[in-house]
Amino acid sequence: MTLETTPPIEQDSGVWRFPADQPLTLESGGQIDGLEMAWSSYGRLNADRSNAVLVCHALTLDQYAAGIHPVSGKPGWWTRLIGPGKPLDPAKHFIVCANVVGGCMGSTGPGSINPVTGRPWGLAFPVITIGDMVRAQAMLIEAMGVSTLFAVVGGSMGGMQVLQWAADYPERMFSAVCVATAARHTAQNIAFHEVGRQAIMADPDWRGGEYALHGGRPGKGLAVARMAAHITYLSEAALQRKFGRELQRDGLSWGFDADFQVESYLRYQGASFVDRFDANSYLYITRAMDYFDLAAAHGGVLAEAFRKARDVRFCVLSFTSDWLYPTVESRQIVRALNAAGARASFVEIESDKGHDAFLLDEPVMEAALAGFLDAAGAARGLS
Amino acid sequence: MTLETTPPIEQDSGVWRFPADQPLTLESGGQIDGLEMAWSSYGRLNADRSNAVLVCHALTLDQYAAGIHPVSGKPGWWTRLIGPGKPLDPAKHFIVCANVVGGCMGSTGPGSINPVTGRPWGLAFPVITIGDMVRAQAMLIEAMGVSTLFAVVGGSMGGMQVLQWAADYPERMFSAVCVATAARHTAQNIAFHEVGRQAIMADPDWRGGEYALHGGRPGKGLAVARMAAHITYLSEAALQRKFGRELQRDGLSWGFDADFQVESYLRYQGASFVDRFDANSYLYITRAMDYFDLAAAHGGVLAEAFRKARDVRFCVLSFTSDWLYPTVESRQIVRALNAAGARASFVEIESDKGHDAFLLDEPVMEAALAGFLDAAGAARGLS
Repeated sequence: MTLETTPPIEQDSGVWRFPADQPLTLESGGQIDGLEMAWSSYGRLNADRSNAVLVCHALTLDQYAAGIHPVSGKPGWWTRLIGPGKPLDPAKHFIVCANVVGGCMGSTGPGSINPVTGRPWGLAFPVITIGDMVRAQAMLIEAMGVSTLFAVVGGSMGGMQVLQWAADYPERMFSAVCVATAARHTAQNIAFHEVGRQAIMADPDWRGGEYALHGGRPGKGLAVARMAAHITYLSEAALQRKFGRELQRDGLSWGFDADFQVESYLRYQGASFVDRFDANSYLYITRAMDYFDLAAAHGGVLAEAFRKARDVRFCVLSFTSDWLYPTVESRQIVRALNAAGARASFVEIESDKGHDAFLLDEPVMEAALAGFLDAAGAARGLS
Repeated sequence: MTLETTPPIEQDSGVWRFPADQPLTLESGGQIDGLEMAWSSYGRLNADRSNAVLVCHALTLDQYAAGIHPVSGKPGWWTRLIGPGKPLDPAKHFIVCANVVGGCMGSTGPGSINPVTGRPWGLAFPVITIGDMVRAQAMLIEAMGVSTLFAVVGGSMGGMQVLQWAADYPERMFSAVCVATAARHTAQNIAFHEVGRQAIMADPDWRGGEYALHGGRPGKGLAVARMAAHITYLSEAALQRKFGRELQRDGLSWGFDADFQVESYLRYQGASFVDRFDANSYLYITRAMDYFDLAAAHGGVLAEAFRKARDVRFCVLSFTSDWLYPTVESRQIVRALNAAGARASFVEIESDKGHDAFLLDEPVMEAALAGFLDAAGAARGLS
């Protein structure tokens, strides 16, 4: 999608600082005082405050889900789904997206200043969880004057937050959409994240997480982490279709330059990621995902997590070629929702684009979302 | 498999230095003078020199396919298949395995001394190919007095060598066994190798490949490379079955220690690999695999590669859960062999162990290999 084809959209943004008497309590047992949450919004809250939608972002994304990203100048990551005439429409919905706790786009994270020391937190920042991210969002939403969200929507790690919302705040949401996600991280999910963390921590410029004090950044390690992760976002078929064994130049280099286009592409993915993301945030957010296991927090029975969410309308979407969070994980969510007595629409979308399909041109996803949100909106009396 | 259950096996080993007038010519256009090939053998060549078997090793393995590894003290990597009463039996076969060119277990590689400079080759070592590895093996085998091999056998990169043998020296082999392999590296295969190479080259101790001169080794980078690769050797199901979300200790650490058993396992895989493998060899051998595309060297038609191999008996084995070299790659090999008029037995073995199944306890693999080699041996007049 190019800038030219992106319809203009009004974007508000700001940073909300938690009041002094409202720390964010953490699953680890600690708390964060004076937490700041950086948010963006599209559309306006209606008179009866019934049209608010919380959009939850994935691991390396941020609050700029639509509009133009102020740093990159590129369209927001879900411009396909948010905008005039799109499933999430600022003319109908008040759409809010906030940078997660632990992030690096304005919300409090390991790169923020620790008020106690006056220096960046680094590894002194507490380990946070998906539950902590969601608790912070719930406080932000309340501060915005919204007691019940029309919908909570997200893909990948954003979908984990949606599920956590359904477990923790079912009475504060009317509907839920989770795309390309899972209710827990598998051993393989954890393994890939651990490779990334080890790559970062192996970089001498990481300096035990204190790189901010030394003026450097563990860019090489972070780039390797991103390269490894990026492979898991694409399907084998998509990689083969896009790149195959195509060369960068005529003939092989007979050396270790990027001979193959797929090598050049991966190197670019690594290098450009370093420009926009913080290494310690990557450690903390991947850790939060690895710790995520919604069933474990409910006696090992996923349906128990959704026991109070039977009045929430769910839409669960997965992609056939997603091997990071494959359809079987979505089916487990749907089975648990059914067992809990909740309404759940489930669509497995045929796509060869892998996990990243949730960010790409997938007409069936757009149609499914539009249909689900229209029906939920009608039930909510929105349009 | 423990030492106690390994039947004793007589192992010869040595290093063969190419005669001064026989350099190894390389696909890159260069040559290596005075190449050394480190080999091991089991059993004896029979009177009519018809019982020789060449076993080809995978990326990080070596010539110690059976017996006891002189460095690690552990059983050879294919002890399940090589030994008294096994499919490859020293009582019947003269089994030879040689460390590949570019390796680090005694054959000439980037860690060897460059005779021109008197220092380790490092990145001045020429880029080698699977074809170069096989050409060196052919010269070694000839020097051993073997003009026709009874069988060429290998798994993973070893299987690539088997296919290359069939393309380049079909008249010098009676049968061929390739397990868990492919006739070319896909974009995803290349991508994972590139992550590993970037991890090594990002390590400041790599020093542009000249670490041997500085007394250090890029251990952290090599460990990360191994961790990423190791995930591709196992299936998602095997990782989940072996580790799931099991913790190392009671409760989470709320930090970046190895909380999950799969993290600890991966870290161990990385650390122990560094003790036994050379980082530059890893670069060179992964490069050789990425360059491998047997069809491309034959006008883009894989069957053309096997045109002269129609008298060779082939056995192709794959594993259902191998996502590194999935069954579809083996089927392409079999189709090409059929198109070329060669005899090919093909078995897809049900296993949840992933790519590494070819090294593990897989009774169907052992039975298939035994059956194939028995029939081929009878046709060859071996027993």
